[in-house]
Amino acid sequence: MPAIDLPFSPAEYERRLTKVRQAMAAADIDLLFVEDPSNMAWLTGYDGWSFYVHQGVIVTDQGPPIWWVRAQDANGARLTVHMADDRVEGYPDTFVQSTERHPMEHLAGLIRDRGFASKRIGLELDNYYFSAKAYLVLERELPNATLVDATALANRERGVKSPEEIVFMRRAAAISEKIIDGIVERMAPGLAKNELVAEIFRDAITGVGEAWGDYPAIVPLAPTGADAAAPHLTWDGRVFERGAATFFEISGCFRRYHAPLCRTVYLGTPPQYLRDAERALVEGLEAGLQAARSGNRAADVARALHRSLAQAGIERDARCGYPIGLSYPPDWGERTISFRAGDETVLEPGMTFHFMPGLWMEDWGLEITESILIAETGPAECLCDRPRRLIVKD
Amino acid sequence: MPAIDLPFSPAEYERRLTKVRQAMAAADIDLLFVEDPSNMAWLTGYDGWSFYVHQGVIVTDQGPPIWWVRAQDANGARLTVHMADDRVEGYPDTFVQSTERHPMEHLAGLIRDRGFASKRIGLELDNYYFSAKAYLVLERELPNATLVDATALANRERGVKSPEEIVFMRRAAAISEKIIDGIVERMAPGLAKNELVAEIFRDAITGVGEAWGDYPAIVPLAPTGADAAAPHLTWDGRVFERGAATFFEISGCFRRYHAPLCRTVYLGTPPQYLRDAERALVEGLEAGLQAARSGNRAADVARALHRSLAQAGIERDARCGYPIGLSYPPDWGERTISFRAGDETVLEPGMTFHFMPGLWMEDWGLEITESILIAETGPAECLCDRPRRLIVKD
Repeated sequence: MPAIDLPFSPAEYERRLTKVRQAMAAADIDLLFVEDPSNMAWLTGYDGWSFYVHQGVIVTDQGPPIWWVRAQDANGARLTVHMADDRVEGYPDTFVQSTERHPMEHLAGLIRDRGFASKRIGLELDNYYFSAKAYLVLERELPNATLVDATALANRERGVKSPEEIVFMRRAAAISEKIIDGIVERMAPGLAKNELVAEIFRDAITGVGEAWGDYPAIVPLAPTGADAAAPHLTWDGRVFERGAATFFEISGCFRRYHAPLCRTVYLGTPPQYLRDAERALVEGLEAGLQAARSGNRAADVARALHRSLAQAGIERDARCGYPIGLSYPPDWGERTISFRAGDETVLEPGMTFHFMPGLWMEDWGLEITESILIAETGPAECLCDRPRRLIVKD
Repeated sequence: MPAIDLPFSPAEYERRLTKVRQAMAAADIDLLFVEDPSNMAWLTGYDGWSFYVHQGVIVTDQGPPIWWVRAQDANGARLTVHMADDRVEGYPDTFVQSTERHPMEHLAGLIRDRGFASKRIGLELDNYYFSAKAYLVLERELPNATLVDATALANRERGVKSPEEIVFMRRAAAISEKIIDGIVERMAPGLAKNELVAEIFRDAITGVGEAWGDYPAIVPLAPTGADAAAPHLTWDGRVFERGAATFFEISGCFRRYHAPLCRTVYLGTPPQYLRDAERALVEGLEAGLQAARSGNRAADVARALHRSLAQAGIERDARCGYPIGLSYPPDWGERTISFRAGDETVLEPGMTFHFMPGLWMEDWGLEITESILIAETGPAECLCDRPRRLIVKD
């Protein structure tokens, strides 16, 4: 067997486990079951595309986490997690996508065997991949347990990044810069969009130097013209033409860590309304970066942005930022804090966000964004270093 | 606004809606809420990466489907669905990833307004993205409704492919062939694995001729040597070396339709155990293709495969195939039928499967697979046409 190539030091995993246990204690949770792939990887090091079936990590105050997984993925767990092999528990393949058996029946057996059948069990009720059925089966199989909502419990502990994590995010940021540079260089009238996206993927996976590229948790979004009024369209085979803007929402990824970066490219001479929006957006971004400092609130960043936009007559009320870090599809956000009115979370040094004030108007769109790190003092640091403006190719 | 470029004819969408309504009637369901992105796209044409927030399609016997979606994604819906704009309903951004409000509160209001508050409501309890919390909120908000498990209801109706869909799958298959050809051509000792995967993505997205490439629902899986004992590891930056096998599990994708194809490449001279396994596996595949015919059962295919493998001393009990077609991450399977003992589903012409008898042994793995179409008569047709063997590069 090859040696396990863990992304992080033992101390880092210990730090994470301790934080999660403290959060469990605060919520009076005896056993936490984590099914969100990002939380699983963060706690154990597991890295594989097996989250399309039920699997998860069990945390209690007794010993290291337990990896509970489809039997055929137990090998993948043993090859990637920091725990010893005896902390990996496989369930038989007959439970997979069956109409007669549900994997949660097996998990409930494990929970009973370990003595937690009448304890308080934390479940990620609104994280990814923990289905309604999974909940209903556990409820039926563990009638004496108290099921507690632990949505985002682990996610919140992921908010402040360690120095080891920041190193990974800087590598992801270098890949993001490379991707944007490649887009600006290659984009031209007559080029088919999928051909450009093919090069985006190639740049993303090739990576930069030692930083080999991993797959991002969201594929490139690249709508053009009126399609850019919609934030989440992907691509097709049509060619780029003069006289339209295309925004590119991309992220480099290094060992599951992300640093998204969006830029908009206009082929030809941009209309005045786009120039006006660009000016307001860039001013708003700069005001937001000033507001994104330790001790301020998440809502302060939104307020600073929206003040600049409003001066240019642009009303915007969707959230304009979210935490980023380790992620698996379908989202590179951490789904905890939002830069928006009403979110009074205090910003702390080491938090990382995608400051993402996309403009999606009636029949056009504009995205200029930054991945940021909250500093000890002063304004936020941008992880990428690329001109913060509408890119024009004539 | 550009004209909507719907993948399929109006008759095709009508056919799908009719089938789903028949299945609803059989289950006595008045209103079906579909949150699985694959089912949503299949019913409406919607194509966007917005499934990381709650959204869904509502089907009743009154008029076309209703698209219920985050307000900022309503533009994307209007640009991609076959229904009129007044069938798109947006919910405010304040519901997104909030700890105070849940999008299902908004959906429940819509269901009440449309007169279904005390009806039988079908929910995909174990499909992707419909969370436990979503269920609990709907249960609380609709106390007079009867919530019915509609897991895989729409998925089952997707099983038999229309001629229009088969055209798309053949395009995906052509892309799969191109990807495998590129792997065989480029793989060599000293090449970093991520560099090869970068070319896989480039080939996949570039596509073949008119068939521009879409992103597959699963990223390339490419474990080497002992890592190939695990079916779902992705890649890293290490270089290929002589004396090891790497399997590649990939799929081309055309407008969300897939045709997965797996091949294994050995650099150097393969050991005898791998040659023996190859022979047994290829014989088993050929026996399985013979068994995969209209009127036979899903279990017959597994039986034919396992008989050949057992003769070579290989015990295998995991399922060896699943239906394929339109898909979004995290899975390109349809999660209905399984090629395994006990699944007595009768095979019908037009069904498509990934016949996937991966061997994941103690410290090695071998994957040689086919995407297949059940024919009117005779054995299954393979969608791809590439040699069915271990590929050796010396």
